[in-house]
Amino acid sequence: MSAVVCVGTVGLDTVETPFGRADDALGGSAAYFAAAAAAVGTKTQLVSVVGEDFPPEHRRFLANTGADLEGLEVLPGRCFRWAGRYHFDMNRRDTLDTQLNVLAEFQPKLPAAYRRAEYVFLANVDPVLQLKVLAQVERPKLTMLDSMNFWITGARDALTEALGEVDVVMMNEEEVRQYADTPNLLKGARHILSLGPQTIIIKKGEYGAVLFRGDGFFYCPAYPLEDVKDPTGAGDSFAGGFLGYLAQAGDLAMANFRRALVHGSVVASFTVEDFSVRRLASVTPDEIKQRYREFREFTYFDEV
Amino acid sequence: MSAVVCVGTVGLDTVETPFGRADDALGGSAAYFAAAAAAVGTKTQLVSVVGEDFPPEHRRFLANTGADLEGLEVLPGRCFRWAGRYHFDMNRRDTLDTQLNVLAEFQPKLPAAYRRAEYVFLANVDPVLQLKVLAQVERPKLTMLDSMNFWITGARDALTEALGEVDVVMMNEEEVRQYADTPNLLKGARHILSLGPQTIIIKKGEYGAVLFRGDGFFYCPAYPLEDVKDPTGAGDSFAGGFLGYLAQAGDLAMANFRRALVHGSVVASFTVEDFSVRRLASVTPDEIKQRYREFREFTYFDEV
Repeated sequence: MSAVVCVGTVGLDTVETPFGRADDALGGSAAYFAAAAAAVGTKTQLVSVVGEDFPPEHRRFLANTGADLEGLEVLPGRCFRWAGRYHFDMNRRDTLDTQLNVLAEFQPKLPAAYRRAEYVFLANVDPVLQLKVLAQVERPKLTMLDSMNFWITGARDALTEALGEVDVVMMNEEEVRQYADTPNLLKGARHILSLGPQTIIIKKGEYGAVLFRGDGFFYCPAYPLEDVKDPTGAGDSFAGGFLGYLAQAGDLAMANFRRALVHGSVVASFTVEDFSVRRLASVTPDEIKQRYREFREFTYFDEV
Repeated sequence: MSAVVCVGTVGLDTVETPFGRADDALGGSAAYFAAAAAAVGTKTQLVSVVGEDFPPEHRRFLANTGADLEGLEVLPGRCFRWAGRYHFDMNRRDTLDTQLNVLAEFQPKLPAAYRRAEYVFLANVDPVLQLKVLAQVERPKLTMLDSMNFWITGARDALTEALGEVDVVMMNEEEVRQYADTPNLLKGARHILSLGPQTIIIKKGEYGAVLFRGDGFFYCPAYPLEDVKDPTGAGDSFAGGFLGYLAQAGDLAMANFRRALVHGSVVASFTVEDFSVRRLASVTPDEIKQRYREFREFTYFDEV
């Protein structure tokens, strides 16, 4: 069974929500991805950069997920840091501070052992870097890219080029509308698919996610949670659960894409139950299975 | 098979969207409800009020849905009128004009033949009137109430009393949050259920709807449409499809609530394909069945 290469950020998050706070907790897209993929039994080959101040306990946590850390470069200087505060309505947050630090010098170099990876996730980084990673992998079975508004407006041409080179695109709904310049998501999805990818996954936050491919369409709701403690990392956990499941299944049939999307939603629902990657550190295979069954239960209806 | 009593508005809508406009078209919650219930084969016993200027073709349309119009009072004066304009993003609209006219004098009186109805829908009107209707029906099998922000702030006590007397509450998510004073929908739903109703249906617009009852939870997405022409009446059509299906099924098991919710979503997806009730006038049972099958297709996933 294949490992998954994930190229993204690893850093220190300081997060405040109405339910508490965490200081210099492990954060970054690649950290959430690795923890989420591990929750469904898949190991990550991690490509990222940290500073000399990266706490040993965070490194141990990543190693304990089974992640290969050969691609986690340590550069002179301080770690990438992000600080944010969520509102009472947790769909809204303010960024209080962003310090790129060593991330400003990130030039992803894949160790030789990573280059034949079958599954590759390009988390939300500069599309120029995403393209450089794609140039380093040999015949992957599936490549998937995440992006955000910052690159849509600031690096549109590179993003468009990257979209043309991956198999799966993941964006949230505002980003699809913004990139495709239409309020209609279906039209936006079709436009992005016309640029090359076979599949687009549109994240809708608390509404779940929807997946379009040429041969089908699948809608997966989010798990209804009474207590969301910290929404940070939900999207990257979703990606980790999705790609982690697909790598396990090893077959790209639509039925597996459906199951994979539900696994993404299941894993993300655990992530937001606690700060940072804490909940992912403790979640068990049985808990994943149980919540997957609940998803079936609350979306199922009979023929008439 | 039972008819369904619907108490709501019938009026003339003038609607502008980026895709066209309609002038003095048939509108109002009870009109959409009756057309939607008819689309799934159920007749409505309609309780509403119109002015002397109510166009005969609109009356004929309602009669053609099979609706009983004995409860459609004609008062001296002009019909209720509403005018609105939708933005490019059709989730946003401006109300340009509201003329209550005869609606200001609406005092729902149920004809004798309606009083033993098994299914009763109280569309979004003053909760004081909703309570008066409930006092006129004998042992209904299922009562359902819709409401809106206007009554939550302006008639909260009466609304709370009405909530305590019905079986099913339908609100949109902002209304649930507002009424229950929490950003968390699940908490809001639990709070409203604690006031009496066995079931709450939370409408999420383009995201579909979710149903909570003591013995289950069900999520139904909205049908992904590339061309929404006019979103007016989607919620009332949803109610008509839901209750119309339940009245056909005649059994309130959770499995039927699930199927009913999907029927609501199916019928609403047709409504928004054209202005006013035009699309509901032409939709066929086969089209309903076909779209129901598509809903199954795009929400289905296997066990693992």
